[in-house]
Amino acid sequence: MPAKALPSALEAAASILRGDERALARLITGLEDGDPAAAGTLRALRGGSAAVGQLTAQVVGVTGPPGSGKSTLVDKLISAYRAKGLRVGVLAVDPSSPFSGGAILGDRIRMQRAEAGPGGGLDPGVFIRSLASRGRLGGLSRATAQSARALEAAGYGVVIVETVGIGQSEIDIARLADTVVLVSMPGSGDDIQVIKAGVMEIGDVFVVNKADREGSDRVVREIRAMLETGATLRQDLALRQGGAAELQPVLKTVAETGEGLPELVLALDARWAKLNASGELASRRARGAAAEARSLLAERALAELALLEPGLEEGLAMEIVRGEREVAEAAEILFSAIRK
Amino acid sequence: MPAKALPSALEAAASILRGDERALARLITGLEDGDPAAAGTLRALRGGSAAVGQLTAQVVGVTGPPGSGKSTLVDKLISAYRAKGLRVGVLAVDPSSPFSGGAILGDRIRMQRAEAGPGGGLDPGVFIRSLASRGRLGGLSRATAQSARALEAAGYGVVIVETVGIGQSEIDIARLADTVVLVSMPGSGDDIQVIKAGVMEIGDVFVVNKADREGSDRVVREIRAMLETGATLRQDLALRQGGAAELQPVLKTVAETGEGLPELVLALDARWAKLNASGELASRRARGAAAEARSLLAERALAELALLEPGLEEGLAMEIVRGEREVAEAAEILFSAIRK
Repeated sequence: MPAKALPSALEAAASILRGDERALARLITGLEDGDPAAAGTLRALRGGSAAVGQLTAQVVGVTGPPGSGKSTLVDKLISAYRAKGLRVGVLAVDPSSPFSGGAILGDRIRMQRAEAGPGGGLDPGVFIRSLASRGRLGGLSRATAQSARALEAAGYGVVIVETVGIGQSEIDIARLADTVVLVSMPGSGDDIQVIKAGVMEIGDVFVVNKADREGSDRVVREIRAMLETGATLRQDLALRQGGAAELQPVLKTVAETGEGLPELVLALDARWAKLNASGELASRRARGAAAEARSLLAERALAELALLEPGLEEGLAMEIVRGEREVAEAAEILFSAIRK
Repeated sequence: MPAKALPSALEAAASILRGDERALARLITGLEDGDPAAAGTLRALRGGSAAVGQLTAQVVGVTGPPGSGKSTLVDKLISAYRAKGLRVGVLAVDPSSPFSGGAILGDRIRMQRAEAGPGGGLDPGVFIRSLASRGRLGGLSRATAQSARALEAAGYGVVIVETVGIGQSEIDIARLADTVVLVSMPGSGDDIQVIKAGVMEIGDVFVVNKADREGSDRVVREIRAMLETGATLRQDLALRQGGAAELQPVLKTVAETGEGLPELVLALDARWAKLNASGELASRRARGAAAEARSLLAERALAELALLEPGLEEGLAMEIVRGEREVAEAAEILFSAIRK
């Protein structure tokens, strides 16, 4: 007599927990599409997973300008973590911008194939998925954070989120990742533009890749100097509350040859150990989740508004343009409409 | 017998309309501080100004990496517009990041003094103000858009908003400006990083500054190629709906010597004429105002939430981290709390 069929969300969650990568891929597709069934599967998966609540997966954001060699670096990180026996999930955020082309996934799969064992099959301990970015300025899609949580629940010990640092994605990656790796490279001339001032602050580990090129030491020095200035200013602001702050590591790598990779993995391990020991991991994730819930709330409110009072927002916007109303007043009217 | 005193908002608005720059500076400070009196003055100023509703000021956003010579370019633009008899307002957004230093305003005032007439006084047709940026990833403060509207009402014909392109500021400037000038410069090696892919899309006019340096033609070619690729892809997506789209101008300048500045001013004039003739100006501003009202609405909702149910958001965030709740559910609970 056949066992009674499980509800489909439980069935899918069970498949994923048994290591079925196709079921995992289907879940992520569903999350991208906003499919309610996928939301159910994610709930079941996280509810049924021993990994969840234990915060077992380090979520590493890798970001930097095009041409800095991020993808090669990520490929070497995959190999390094596989050698340590960890399963690795990679979410490559592929800006949907028409300017970016973006055959990330295809390239990556070819690379995986090339590196796979004698049989030429894909390594079952590695899950790679490309995700569309949201909107014109490169925000990560909502599915990115959900997919990272799904990968943790599915037992991946490291989740790498690779993005090109653009507008909103710089903000989103700082929210989503436990550790942000900012990748730059030696330029020549004006190296200061390699990492833009404000973006320094999201970096937990700095990597100067292509360090066999001329000028890499100078870039390292400049990044260190910027970090020191920032730390000093912050300390002054905080009225020197106790000892010198530890600066973020700045490492040189040549991803093509693997040079500097062991040091990078050590730095990531040290960061992970510290996040766990200090309790900062849970509070950092909670801050990210709160921000995520907040932007979903804002979307929800706007959707409701469009239903309740269609055209209200557009009308108010034109009144602002014509000088008949100020923006604070418009926001107040929108808020009242929601609460009505 | 002395005339009866006007209410203070009307008094301040009248002073600004008579050309009192100190009153204008006070208004902007008040807007930055969220002072309700400043909101009243802005309302009175816009209500009383003939310029408002006529959309008389071109708001030009100038953005680009540090070291690209933005400030010098802006200074030359000021001179060019002054020579045409227009009053020019400049809002320099000074990231509050500890990494950025940011003595923009001090430097600028010195420069203005140096360039001013024989008496050494400041040019009364130029109003320069530095504004703090909001948050760690460089968003423009709410006061930026309000200040731009105040400058238009006060009769400035050009409002230049100068920012370093970082995270949120790239999104904000695209919302706020009628025309975005993206400044880059010749690098060497990997020029593709000079302008990041996704950011191309916010540019209405592209400037390769420091064009006396080697490699400027190559940067121009690369930007044009990226613009063409983008246009082609968009056209394919839109199933070739009518003739070839006009590409954004890509201009070379040497701001230090003023080379290329007349061409830049021509390009800005052409853009401004087109925005006016097509009616795109009002609809673009309305989209920006709607986005502004929306983010204010979101803030308002969150503030209300913190009052209604203190701790609710933090509690839900921890439940997400522990795997006891998904983010969509949390957003729904927050939304119900607001509507209650």
